[in-house]
Amino acid sequence: MTTFSLPTLTDLCDPAFTQALQHKIDTKTKPLGSLGRLETLALNLGQILGGESPVLKDPQMVVFAGDHGLVARGVSAFPQDVSWQMVENFLACGAAVSVFSRANGIALTVVDCGVAHDFLAGLPEGTQRPGLLVRKVAGGEKGTADSFVQPAMTAAQCQEALQNGMDIVKGLPGNALLLGEMGIGNTSAASLLLARLAGLDIEVCTGAGTGLDAPAVQRKAAVLREVLARHPQAQAPLDALAALGGFEIATMVGAVMQAAHERRVVVVDGFIATSAVLVAHALQPLVLQRCVFAHRSGERGHEFMLQHLGVQALLDMGLRLGEGSGGALAWPLLQSACVMLRDMASFESAGVSEKAEVQAEQV
Amino acid sequence: MTTFSLPTLTDLCDPAFTQALQHKIDTKTKPLGSLGRLETLALNLGQILGGESPVLKDPQMVVFAGDHGLVARGVSAFPQDVSWQMVENFLACGAAVSVFSRANGIALTVVDCGVAHDFLAGLPEGTQRPGLLVRKVAGGEKGTADSFVQPAMTAAQCQEALQNGMDIVKGLPGNALLLGEMGIGNTSAASLLLARLAGLDIEVCTGAGTGLDAPAVQRKAAVLREVLARHPQAQAPLDALAALGGFEIATMVGAVMQAAHERRVVVVDGFIATSAVLVAHALQPLVLQRCVFAHRSGERGHEFMLQHLGVQALLDMGLRLGEGSGGALAWPLLQSACVMLRDMASFESAGVSEKAEVQAEQV
Repeated sequence: MTTFSLPTLTDLCDPAFTQALQHKIDTKTKPLGSLGRLETLALNLGQILGGESPVLKDPQMVVFAGDHGLVARGVSAFPQDVSWQMVENFLACGAAVSVFSRANGIALTVVDCGVAHDFLAGLPEGTQRPGLLVRKVAGGEKGTADSFVQPAMTAAQCQEALQNGMDIVKGLPGNALLLGEMGIGNTSAASLLLARLAGLDIEVCTGAGTGLDAPAVQRKAAVLREVLARHPQAQAPLDALAALGGFEIATMVGAVMQAAHERRVVVVDGFIATSAVLVAHALQPLVLQRCVFAHRSGERGHEFMLQHLGVQALLDMGLRLGEGSGGALAWPLLQSACVMLRDMASFESAGVSEKAEVQAEQV
Repeated sequence: MTTFSLPTLTDLCDPAFTQALQHKIDTKTKPLGSLGRLETLALNLGQILGGESPVLKDPQMVVFAGDHGLVARGVSAFPQDVSWQMVENFLACGAAVSVFSRANGIALTVVDCGVAHDFLAGLPEGTQRPGLLVRKVAGGEKGTADSFVQPAMTAAQCQEALQNGMDIVKGLPGNALLLGEMGIGNTSAASLLLARLAGLDIEVCTGAGTGLDAPAVQRKAAVLREVLARHPQAQAPLDALAALGGFEIATMVGAVMQAAHERRVVVVDGFIATSAVLVAHALQPLVLQRCVFAHRSGERGHEFMLQHLGVQALLDMGLRLGEGSGGALAWPLLQSACVMLRDMASFESAGVSEKAEVQAEQV
C-alpha cells in the first residue's frame, strides 16, 4: 500500500493584500459596492490567484463518474445504466455539461472512478479514449458496495480514490478546476454525507434527485435513515466518506484538496460537488478559501450544505441537473469579475468626479 | 412636425409551436425541468426568434445617456458632470458596461440623448466619434427641464426621443438589443414613473441610487412626492413619460418598441432600463413577450417593477450599477440557453434510458 497523505494548505488571508485589493475595487468607476456579489467574487479570485490583476487560465471541467451499490434499494428515478450512457453522452458532446463547457471555453475530462461498465471493451489493449480517464477504484466494474449492508468502500479503496483525485489534478493545466459528477444514486450518498457531517436529520437532507415523487422521496429517506443507523462508527470525515460515499465523490475530495493546495480556483457545482467540498472542508477548513459556489441547487439539502459551510452561491435559477452544468453556466461571471479588476478604469484614471456631499432641497 | 406612430406588435404566443418547443426541451438528456429557469429562458428565446434552434446574432448594447434638470434639487450623490465623464469612460472602454460587453462579445454604442455637454466640441464640423451617436433631443445641451417646476420635456420632445430610439434600432445589426443607460438623476425619473404607472406610493419606489444615505433618501422621496403632486394630469403613459422621465428613458422606450416590433430579444438591465419597459408595456403589453430581465437590482423599487410586470429576473447578485452592466453579465446565460436547444442530445439520439418506475425497498 502507498504511503498516503493529504496535501497541506496555507492560509490565503493576508490583511494588507486584501485591503489593497478592496481599495482597487472601491476606486473603480462605479458607486461603492454597486457590483454587489461580483465584487466579493473579484476579491476572492484575487486572493486565490494571488494578484490584483488575476487571469483565469485553461479552465478544466472534470466530471467524476461512479456507480452506487445502494441503487439496488430503489433510491433513484433512473436505472443504473444511465451512468455509463451519460458518460458516453459527455464524450459525444451531447450532455448539458458538454455543450455549456464548450460554449464557455472550458475543457472537459470525464473520469471513470468506478462506473459499472467497461468503456474500453472491444478496443485494443492500451487504447485511450479522448476526454476519458479510467481510474476505477479497486479495478472493478461494479461501483461501490451497497451501503445498506456494508461500507460503500474500504478504507484502502477510499485512499485510492483520494490519491487518484490528487494525481488527476496534478496533471491538469490551468488555474481553475470546475467540479462535475455523474452517478445514478449519488444524491443519496450526498444526502448521507450531509446528514452525518453536519449533524442534520436525514429527512431534511433528502430530495427528489432526478425526479422522485413525494412517496418515493419518503421511501428514499427511510432507506437512508437505515443506512446511517447501520454505520454508527463512521463519524470522522474519511470514515463517513468510505461508509456512505461514492467512488466519484471520494475521487472528487482528493481533487479538491490538490487543487486547493495548488491555489487553483475550485468552482463548485450543486449538491454532489458540494458534498465533496463538505468532506474536504471537514478535513481542512481552509479549502473554502479556494472555492467559488456556482449556484444554489433546486435539490433539497443543497441550501443546508451552503448554510453549514457559511457560503453564498452565485446563481439561483432552480438548477438541479448536476454534471457540472451549473459551474459551466456560472463560469463567465468569474471571467467578468477578473476583467473588472484588470480592465475597469479608476475614478482617477478616467477623470470622473467622485461622490459629492449633496443635500436634497427641503420641500 | 413628423407624423408619429409607434410600431405595432403581433402576439408571439402560438400554442402548437410552444408545445413543440417545450417537447424538444423536455426530451433533452436531463431530468425533466432540471435546468430550472434556463429552460424557461430557452422557451422564451425560441418564441421570440421564431425557431426551435435559435441563434443569437450580433448582440448590441446601447447605452442611452441624458441629463436631468431635477438634479438641481439634490437628488443624486454624484454631481451632474459625471454623466458626460462616464460617457467618455464608456467610449474609452473603461466602464463596467464597456469591459463586460467586450468580454462577452457584445458591441457597444453610446447615444447622447441630451447630456449637458458637447462631445464634438473642437472637432471639425461633421466629425463622428466611433461608438457615439449624438441624438440630442431638442438639439440642446441642457438635459431635461426640472420636473419640480415644469414637465421634464414637451410632448413634441417626447415624440422626438421616441422616434430617435426607433430609428437607432432600425440601423442596428443582429437580433438582440441590450439596454444600457447613463444619467445622473435618472433613478429619480425611474422612481417617479414606477409610482405613477404602477400606482405605488413614492416612498417604496425611492432608493439610494448611486449611494445616498438614509436621510438623503428621505429628502429625495420628499422631492419626488412634490414632483408627482405638481403633475396630476400626467397619468397616461406618454404624458407621464414627458412630465417625469428623462430624454434617455424616452429614447429607450422608442428603442424597446422598435426592437419588439422586429422580434429582437430585448435584454433589460436594472431599475432605469426596466422603467422604460414599464412605459412600453403600458403602451403595448405584448412588449413583454420580447423581454428578458437580466437581474434583480439592489436598488429599492426594482423588485416592485418586476412584480408589477409579473416577471422574474435571471441574476440576483445585488447589482445596482446600471449602465447595462447586469445585461452584459447575464448575456452568456442567453447564449447557453440557445446552445441547450441547439446542441444538447435527446434521450433518443444519445441512446440514454429514460426515467423508470422504481420503488424504494420498504425498510
